Amino acid sequence: MTTRSPLAPRRFPVLPAIAGVRLGTTRAGVRYKGRTDVLLAEFTQGTQVAGVFTRSLTASAPVEWCRRAVRGGTARALIVNSGNANAFTGQAGLDAVERTATSVARRARCRPGEVIVASTGVIGEALPDERIRMVLDKLHAGLAPGCWDSAAKAIMTTDTFPKGAAREAVIDGVPVTLAGIAKGSGMIAPDMATMLAFLFTDARLPASVLASLLRRATRRSFNSITVDSDTSTSDSCVLFATGKGRRHAWIERVGDPRLREFRAALESLMVDLAQQITRDGEGAQKFVTITVSGAVSEQAARRVGLGIANSPLVKTAIAGEDPNWGRIVMAVGKAGERASRDRLAISIGGHPVAVDGQVAPNYVEALAVEHMAGREIEIAVDVGIGRGRATVWTCDLTHGYIDINADYRS
Amino acid sequence: MTTRSPLAPRRFPVLPAIAGVRLGTTRAGVRYKGRTDVLLAEFTQGTQVAGVFTRSLTASAPVEWCRRAVRGGTARALIVNSGNANAFTGQAGLDAVERTATSVARRARCRPGEVIVASTGVIGEALPDERIRMVLDKLHAGLAPGCWDSAAKAIMTTDTFPKGAAREAVIDGVPVTLAGIAKGSGMIAPDMATMLAFLFTDARLPASVLASLLRRATRRSFNSITVDSDTSTSDSCVLFATGKGRRHAWIERVGDPRLREFRAALESLMVDLAQQITRDGEGAQKFVTITVSGAVSEQAARRVGLGIANSPLVKTAIAGEDPNWGRIVMAVGKAGERASRDRLAISIGGHPVAVDGQVAPNYVEALAVEHMAGREIEIAVDVGIGRGRATVWTCDLTHGYIDINADYRS
Repeated sequence: MTTRSPLAPRRFPVLPAIAGVRLGTTRAGVRYKGRTDVLLAEFTQGTQVAGVFTRSLTASAPVEWCRRAVRGGTARALIVNSGNANAFTGQAGLDAVERTATSVARRARCRPGEVIVASTGVIGEALPDERIRMVLDKLHAGLAPGCWDSAAKAIMTTDTFPKGAAREAVIDGVPVTLAGIAKGSGMIAPDMATMLAFLFTDARLPASVLASLLRRATRRSFNSITVDSDTSTSDSCVLFATGKGRRHAWIERVGDPRLREFRAALESLMVDLAQQITRDGEGAQKFVTITVSGAVSEQAARRVGLGIANSPLVKTAIAGEDPNWGRIVMAVGKAGERASRDRLAISIGGHPVAVDGQVAPNYVEALAVEHMAGREIEIAVDVGIGRGRATVWTCDLTHGYIDINADYRS
Repeated sequence: MTTRSPLAPRRFPVLPAIAGVRLGTTRAGVRYKGRTDVLLAEFTQGTQVAGVFTRSLTASAPVEWCRRAVRGGTARALIVNSGNANAFTGQAGLDAVERTATSVARRARCRPGEVIVASTGVIGEALPDERIRMVLDKLHAGLAPGCWDSAAKAIMTTDTFPKGAAREAVIDGVPVTLAGIAKGSGMIAPDMATMLAFLFTDARLPASVLASLLRRATRRSFNSITVDSDTSTSDSCVLFATGKGRRHAWIERVGDPRLREFRAALESLMVDLAQQITRDGEGAQKFVTITVSGAVSEQAARRVGLGIANSPLVKTAIAGEDPNWGRIVMAVGKAGERASRDRLAISIGGHPVAVDGQVAPNYVEALAVEHMAGREIEIAVDVGIGRGRATVWTCDLTHGYIDINADYRS
């Protein structure tokens, strides 16, 4: 699958360098030949860190490492390899992470616990970490600001395009910058596990604040997308704040109104990356935005939205360009959240399809069909109970998904 | 899709008549032309009833009716139509159910609340219940014992074969008989919603005992299968006990040891029907049995099993005849139940693939590949924590599923 997704953005965006972040990539031959597969990032002293990780109970060795590492609150380096996920590899896998982190720490002159490690690729094969350690000197010598495009490419597995985004915000009158890269093509790609996202800012914020901001924004971004409902053993999203931008007030409370703009920028950045991952969904031909309103809470709305987005019957109907609202009703019903059968309303592409729990009296199927023929599909559902509202994103389920995933691995 | 599933049993089994049950079918033209689409069953006075129904919050009108009806504990008739689910039809739908039940009750000389009503077919269209009521006289006049094959055919929608099964058991030294029919081809078929199952016995058991037996057996049968993880708005399973077989002791406690054999027979009957539904899964080319052991409880084991069975990545790997255990590990991890990463064991077709949380040292992929090439796939997973054990059944996810479901409805 080297064909670029039809839903991909035109080009990789221009991302600004982030003060206090230097990047480098190289070819270590972990598994792939003829392409970069290792990313090293080094951060200025005092860089604060927060992370959210897969809830999988068979999480990979790097995820176990990072859960502990982010508790320290500071990070000095990030090392990522593609080609091998170092998952389901037992104690040997944990040893490989520790060796890698120790080697990186020596170059970055920090503690191993300040090195964030991520791996993505095949599951169940020993990570040849010596190949990564062998290239560290060269990698470290070549570190430079910027180079986001190369960084995003080095961490790709079955992705058909590199993913990046940037935002600006003002904290207490002072402009700060955010940039991020991500990979993922399905919650888990065929054997090539994982969604990874790395976010960087020059803002000066304590790890505790970063952690709260990240958790909240993750709910509204990476946890609001689905390609195939499967969850990888390696999903990781890590936020680094160098504090090396223009000096602004030290803010210790996440609820501080001076953080409002930064909070929105971070969420917007993460939604952008999350949408790019969905647009690269395996076999995706259509990008689908599902907005649910009228639920008892935002969380309930999100559950209903994901229920619709994960329904194979809804996803195949979208692939077939069929405005099959009966399947949407079914998916709402199975989501397990309160919904008023007598007030349920559904619209497709802005055209009312159902109102008050019945087919809309003036429903013109031709209009909905026309909308379904496009690349960008919009479904809105009001469950008629409360004021909870959420948006989720997904793609259609096509023959392409079966082609990609029903092939032998070899 | 009129091609019989390659996983279908050779023929419809021979089912015995159940004393106290008379059946009839006819063509009412609810939606389909040139085939039977209505089933009427009449039960002897005093017939006890219990039912389990979809947990969907957008349940159909007949489901709402039946939830109330079974509370009464007795039933005298069952009326089922295919072609229209009478779901998402508002008050008009409820009125149609009431008119139908009242008309049937007049023929059966019972209260409307003693009539069980079920509908399966398109969602969101008004049920032309007058077409059903018009054929009731003819139907009622032709009622006869037996005719299970015709009954199973009349309730089919996109099913490619009729589904039936029978069992015998002994209660307190007296032989009793059980028979059942079911329909379903996916948890929900394209617009043609629903799994329906109707079970009949000549045993003499109170409704409260039937209800307990049914709930428990449902967990281990219909709630242990999945085709595409979608849940219909009309799923119903109803058990009728006429008490017209040979006289046996009156048993009021579900835990009574004299019920042991009946309990096992009911569960076996329901598992048989559930498996037939799975074998008729949309696009299914392989029947998959997943056994999970070593979980904290039976329920936890079932959740892990369904996590594996619902994973599109596992299902496409099976379609591709790929013994891709990495995806099984992923699915175990996302199920949210406790699992020991260091004791996890997986076997495919009896061949150990993973032991102690790592690839089995003597794993020979060729053996697993050979097993995957067959029609009947067996996956066993031990999560290494406790003694909870469960078996679930599913089918593979193929291009056929996409073909069936991505087509326009018209």
